[in-house]
Amino acid sequence: MTKQELFNQIVAKKSFLCVGLDTDPMLIPRFFMDYPDPMFEFNKQIIDATHDLAIAYKPNIAFYEAEGVQGWKSLQRTIDYLSHKYPECFTIADAKRGDIGNTSKKYAAAFFRQMNFDAVTVAPYMGSDSVLPFLEFENKWVILLGLTSNKGSADFQFLESTGKPLFETVMTKAQQWGSSEQLMFVTGATHPEAFKKLRATAEDYFFLVPGVGAQGGRVEDVCTSGMNASGGLIINSTRQIIYASEGNDFAEKARAAALNTVAEMKPFVAQLLS
Amino acid sequence: MTKQELFNQIVAKKSFLCVGLDTDPMLIPRFFMDYPDPMFEFNKQIIDATHDLAIAYKPNIAFYEAEGVQGWKSLQRTIDYLSHKYPECFTIADAKRGDIGNTSKKYAAAFFRQMNFDAVTVAPYMGSDSVLPFLEFENKWVILLGLTSNKGSADFQFLESTGKPLFETVMTKAQQWGSSEQLMFVTGATHPEAFKKLRATAEDYFFLVPGVGAQGGRVEDVCTSGMNASGGLIINSTRQIIYASEGNDFAEKARAAALNTVAEMKPFVAQLLS
Repeated sequence: MTKQELFNQIVAKKSFLCVGLDTDPMLIPRFFMDYPDPMFEFNKQIIDATHDLAIAYKPNIAFYEAEGVQGWKSLQRTIDYLSHKYPECFTIADAKRGDIGNTSKKYAAAFFRQMNFDAVTVAPYMGSDSVLPFLEFENKWVILLGLTSNKGSADFQFLESTGKPLFETVMTKAQQWGSSEQLMFVTGATHPEAFKKLRATAEDYFFLVPGVGAQGGRVEDVCTSGMNASGGLIINSTRQIIYASEGNDFAEKARAAALNTVAEMKPFVAQLLS
Repeated sequence: MTKQELFNQIVAKKSFLCVGLDTDPMLIPRFFMDYPDPMFEFNKQIIDATHDLAIAYKPNIAFYEAEGVQGWKSLQRTIDYLSHKYPECFTIADAKRGDIGNTSKKYAAAFFRQMNFDAVTVAPYMGSDSVLPFLEFENKWVILLGLTSNKGSADFQFLESTGKPLFETVMTKAQQWGSSEQLMFVTGATHPEAFKKLRATAEDYFFLVPGVGAQGGRVEDVCTSGMNASGGLIINSTRQIIYASEGNDFAEKARAAALNTVAEMKPFVAQLLS
C-alpha cells in the first residue's frame, strides 16, 4: 500500500484507528471454543464489526506464536481474510523483529511474502543491516521502534548521547535508510510531552501510535501534536475494543468502542482537510 | 538447565560449541526434497552427526517462520527431537524477541512452554518490562543482546552516554533483572578488542558468542579474553558447519568442521580445569 492510499483511507473513514488483534484464547468469549479455529473466528467477527471504522489491523504475533502450529494457522487465515475481504485496510505484523542481514531477510520473507502483510514492526538495536532487508520490498513498510509506550522505554530510549536521546538518534539515522514512503516509526501515546519533538524529528513520516486506552494515552494529545499534512498517524487501540465485552455482544461492544474512539479523531481529520 | 549442568557439559565434551540451525530449504542438499519434512530431516542428521561435540543447538527462528505453518512444524519437531534424544544439549531459540510486558509473556510461553527451549535471545531496546517476563520461568534462560556481531552494531550500540557505550549500559542494567543463573549476553566474536571489557562488565555471566567462522571472528581471541571460571562461553558456528558440503557427504563434512572448531577450543577447556 502507498502513502497516498493510506491518506485516502484516513479521509474516507475519518479515522486514524488501528485495531490491535492481540487475540488470547483465554480472554475471548467462551463460545468460540466450539469453533474449529477460535482465534481466527474471533478475529473475523471483530474485523467484520469494525472494518468501516478502522484504517488498519495489527495482529500481535506473540499471541499466535504462543499457540504453536495452530496459532500460526490462525494468523495466516486472519491475514488471508483481511487481504481478500478488506484489501483497503492496512495490515501490520506487530513482530518487533530484527537480526543480522541474512536473518532479517528471512523475517521479511515470512511477513511480506509468506503472509502478505503491508508492514512489519522492527527493533532498531542491531542497526542498519538488521533493518535494510525489510526495506527492499516494494509497497511494503517497516515500522521501526522509536519511543515505545511501555514503562521500560525509560531504561535506554532516553539515554542522551551527543545531546540527543537514543530514540531521536534512532529516528534521525533511520531516515537515511528509508523514505517516508516505506518507513514509519512507533511512537507511544504515553509520552504526550515528547510528541512535538517526535514530529519535528521525522516531519513527513507516519507514526504508529500504541498506548491509547488501556495504557493511558489520549487520542486528543496524540492528534494535537502528532498530525502532519498526510495525517501521519495510525493510532492503535486493542484491549478497549476487542475485549469490550466477554459476552455474546462482544462484536457490538467492540464496534461501539471503536465508534467512540473514531469520534474523538473526526475533528482532527476535518482539520486536515480544511 | 542449570549453570552447573552447562559447565559439566563443557567439561565432558571439552567444547564450547553451539551449532546454529539456520536451515534454509534452498541451501540444504537437494535429495532432502524427497522427504516429507526436509528441514527437520536435515536438522536431525546434522544433530546426529555432531551431538557429542556440541554443547548447544541454536535454531534461528526466522528460517522456520519464512516457511509458514510447515516451518513452524519443522521447528517443533526439531526441538522435540533434541529434548528427547539429546536432553543434555542446551537449546536456544534465536528469536531476538522483546515487547511490552503482556506480549513478552506470550513470547516466553511460545518458546519455553509450547516448545520447551532452554533459552531464548531477547532484544533490550524496550527495557525492563520487555525482558522480565522471560525471567519468570525456572531453569530457563534469557540471552540478552549486548554487543552484536553484525556491521550495524556500530550504529547504536557504541553510542556513549555518561561515559559508557550503550551495550555496556544494557549489560550493567540487566544484571539488576536477572542473576548469572538465568541471564546471559550475546557478545559478537567480531569485536575481539572489546572482549576484555565485556567480560569485566559481566564477570560471572555466560556469553553466547556469534560471529566465529563465516563472519570472521576467531575462537582463540574469544577464549583468550572471554572465559571465566565456569567457562562462560557458548561459541556459535553455523554456516561453516551445516553448509560444509552441498553433497551426500554433508553430515560427515559437518562433523569434520565441528571437530576442527572443537580442536581449537580444547586447550582452553583444559586451562579451565587446571
